[in-house]
Amino acid sequence: MAKPNKTPRPKAEAPKGFRDYFGAEVTQRAEMLRKIAGVYHRYGFDALESSGVETVEALGKFLPDVDRPNEGVFAWQEDADADKPGDWLALRYDLTAPLARVYAQHRNDLPTPYRRYAMGPVWRNEKPGPGRFRQFYQCDADTVGAPSVAADAEICAMLADCLEEVGIERGDYIVRVNNRKVLNGVMEVAGVLDPTDPDKFASERGIVLRAIDKLDRLGLDGVRALLGAGRKDDSGDFTDGAGLTDAQADVVMGFMQAKRDTGAETVARLRELVAGSSTGVQGVDELETIADLMAAGGYGPDRVEIDPSVVRGLGYYTGPVFEAELTFEIKDEKGRVRNFGSVAGGGRYDDLVKRFTGQEVPATGVSIGVDRLLAALHAKGRLTGDAIGPVVVTVMDKARMADYQAMVAELRQAGIRAEVYLGNPKNFGNQLKYADRRNSPVAVIAGGDEFDNGMVQIKDLILGAKIAENATLEEWKDRPSQYEVPRADLVAKVREILELNR
Amino acid sequence: MAKPNKTPRPKAEAPKGFRDYFGAEVTQRAEMLRKIAGVYHRYGFDALESSGVETVEALGKFLPDVDRPNEGVFAWQEDADADKPGDWLALRYDLTAPLARVYAQHRNDLPTPYRRYAMGPVWRNEKPGPGRFRQFYQCDADTVGAPSVAADAEICAMLADCLEEVGIERGDYIVRVNNRKVLNGVMEVAGVLDPTDPDKFASERGIVLRAIDKLDRLGLDGVRALLGAGRKDDSGDFTDGAGLTDAQADVVMGFMQAKRDTGAETVARLRELVAGSSTGVQGVDELETIADLMAAGGYGPDRVEIDPSVVRGLGYYTGPVFEAELTFEIKDEKGRVRNFGSVAGGGRYDDLVKRFTGQEVPATGVSIGVDRLLAALHAKGRLTGDAIGPVVVTVMDKARMADYQAMVAELRQAGIRAEVYLGNPKNFGNQLKYADRRNSPVAVIAGGDEFDNGMVQIKDLILGAKIAENATLEEWKDRPSQYEVPRADLVAKVREILELNR
Repeated sequence: MAKPNKTPRPKAEAPKGFRDYFGAEVTQRAEMLRKIAGVYHRYGFDALESSGVETVEALGKFLPDVDRPNEGVFAWQEDADADKPGDWLALRYDLTAPLARVYAQHRNDLPTPYRRYAMGPVWRNEKPGPGRFRQFYQCDADTVGAPSVAADAEICAMLADCLEEVGIERGDYIVRVNNRKVLNGVMEVAGVLDPTDPDKFASERGIVLRAIDKLDRLGLDGVRALLGAGRKDDSGDFTDGAGLTDAQADVVMGFMQAKRDTGAETVARLRELVAGSSTGVQGVDELETIADLMAAGGYGPDRVEIDPSVVRGLGYYTGPVFEAELTFEIKDEKGRVRNFGSVAGGGRYDDLVKRFTGQEVPATGVSIGVDRLLAALHAKGRLTGDAIGPVVVTVMDKARMADYQAMVAELRQAGIRAEVYLGNPKNFGNQLKYADRRNSPVAVIAGGDEFDNGMVQIKDLILGAKIAENATLEEWKDRPSQYEVPRADLVAKVREILELNR
Repeated sequence: MAKPNKTPRPKAEAPKGFRDYFGAEVTQRAEMLRKIAGVYHRYGFDALESSGVETVEALGKFLPDVDRPNEGVFAWQEDADADKPGDWLALRYDLTAPLARVYAQHRNDLPTPYRRYAMGPVWRNEKPGPGRFRQFYQCDADTVGAPSVAADAEICAMLADCLEEVGIERGDYIVRVNNRKVLNGVMEVAGVLDPTDPDKFASERGIVLRAIDKLDRLGLDGVRALLGAGRKDDSGDFTDGAGLTDAQADVVMGFMQAKRDTGAETVARLRELVAGSSTGVQGVDELETIADLMAAGGYGPDRVEIDPSVVRGLGYYTGPVFEAELTFEIKDEKGRVRNFGSVAGGGRYDDLVKRFTGQEVPATGVSIGVDRLLAALHAKGRLTGDAIGPVVVTVMDKARMADYQAMVAELRQAGIRAEVYLGNPKNFGNQLKYADRRNSPVAVIAGGDEFDNGMVQIKDLILGAKIAENATLEEWKDRPSQYEVPRADLVAKVREILELNR
């Protein structure tokens, strides 16, 4: 007698905010990562893979886009040892914080500069939303230990190369470059940054930064409101502003709108805006150098341009910042046309390693949002076609399994994706349904007659589907998409059909 | 004035039991995964990637090699909602438990059978040891929904193909196959399994299973002791035995030693041993079928053999079990010669999905221990050579950075891995040291003279290193490994040197 169920059955569900990826979703991402890794490698970066788990202590409080420390991280405490409490561990939330830890830990064994790329999942303990998951892929490259803006310029060029490598055409993207030092210069001029007391006005500047970062979404008026008293959104919620005077806000707005038709004109305009701030002037000089280096490498303003509206939200950037935006329009989930927007970003951060060693280590890097980039290629129809399924050798006679197995072995040795139908073979219709579901190009059929005569039936499922769609039942009965060939010609005939359907 | 440090600096350390992988370690693994995925794909399996995080409820208590439920898992509780406590989440400890969850969740949208492969890190909250880490890679393929042992046979063939694909030569490995049903038949005959009351003697059988599984390490005497009263190990620790009588233990020992020179003889011997147990006879029949199918596919006993000593520790196997062993000898960390041992294993498990749905779903699969396989290839010297570093364009004149950048851009466009030295260029010796550390094949040097004359110096670092090793200082002074060529010939000359050194 069966025993009664003692416990209720577990729910078969991925945790909230996590999802499963099937078939082409997985292989397309793997292919994209492989291509990007190829570009990173060609630029001289070496691979690094750290584990998904770090100590909370090492990760620190740099979680992007979150104001409060340690929020948004999956963390747990290790079991206590006999004499001391367990360490707090956490899943990494990006690949930059682990890089800082790795560099600090292994710095005596690493070359200087240390140039590494890394790719893999990161985790955020955030509220999931549509298209927003708590595990996603990042694909980063960073140069640690190089103060030269040539390192930043190189990353911008590399980012452009990566986008083209994965199938974003020139003209469909732009890498926009700015410099935090220019922004700081503007803040000095506006009177919300005092170089002798960097902590003063910190909260105001935080609001300014986030406001500029939201230009795309809020528009100029929305940003302006946030620079001043604050802003009420459509839902009636009020967001406090930075409390800048009109004159101060004008300076910041002028900065955001400083972009001119050419890089040289933009640089000239920025020089006017930061006049009097040595930090600001240094930032403009750096932007000019980056523009020169880009031009020398053949990366014109159709690929990389200076754009003062790019600020990147992260507190830790200290110099050049950059962002890759896809410029084509797509329809969002509500059918509205909009720009696809940002797929990658990065910049210079000189303080991350200092946390560990006390020494300032200049670093710059980029992070490509692989999942967003895949979504963009989908939206553009550049990831066409489902993956083609295997050739399915159907089972007419269970006792002949060894013969069927020999057929697939031959096909596989010829490099052809193939499998024997391994479900219950009784219902032949189920076997063809299975082949259909797998998007199989060819079915192989052999029963008693075929084995007796040394023949095999080969069914072109792609042609068959086309005929079934277009022809009358009468024509379909002729089954012109099915061929009987000698057993010895199995591989040759299957290959012929695969090549015709390619 | 600098502010005093408020908090001590964080330790720059990976958590205990976790490690970082650099350069070739990462790319060699990626390459191995790509090759194995290629074989899995050719066999008709589709990719699946689930997230690293699952609910503890969905993972269940199937953690391999651990007796107590939920031990050995990294788990944490989600923040509570307003009205209910947070779910318990955990990092996956293998790829099979998530597959069961995925199949149960998506079964209406998946083909039957569902054939998937998956690769990625898994995590175990276990005591780390030498070469034993708490995050490691698995690379699995499973067929869900196929009761036929043809599915098991196919996995054995595929496992052999995978090993050869990644560079294990035929003769250096063996896939050993057994069947839990045969073992159960033997247990029936020995009187420690009552088919009418499967739970009876469960703990005895658990001890028997683990004892057989340790044959490699304990030898026949050690296993025999564990079947009986128990065993004292070298350290004096005593492990309780299964308490079998001598007669019972003889039956089990006979089973373990049932292997004969040919598969047919082994099958015949097993038939004798299980006579009277219908389960046992069924198991032997299945083994015979597998042997026939292997032969039909061309997989002889030099690649796949029946071996009754394979039991695999996991409680959940219900039919065929298999294991791939590397048969060559290596030296362990203490310099002792030993067999490399198991690198992959799997088998049939018919109950995993049932936890979720109540319906028994037959499944079989294999898991390849990628990190162990990489270690084996290292030990055999099959992963030769460090990765070759980038061509390094040195910086003699900082003001010429745009020219240097143009050089690397040209090299990269020609598909050559290259970078400008981005560290502090003041000390030229540091630049060459850097190139050496990166294992760079070529350094490019251009200063004022070269720019004035439209020339560039190209240094063959590999030849240079050889000369430095073998020649006297006098000869070295001639620097025959350095060439001056017109700037326009940069790419051609670098390519020539790379090809000579290949």
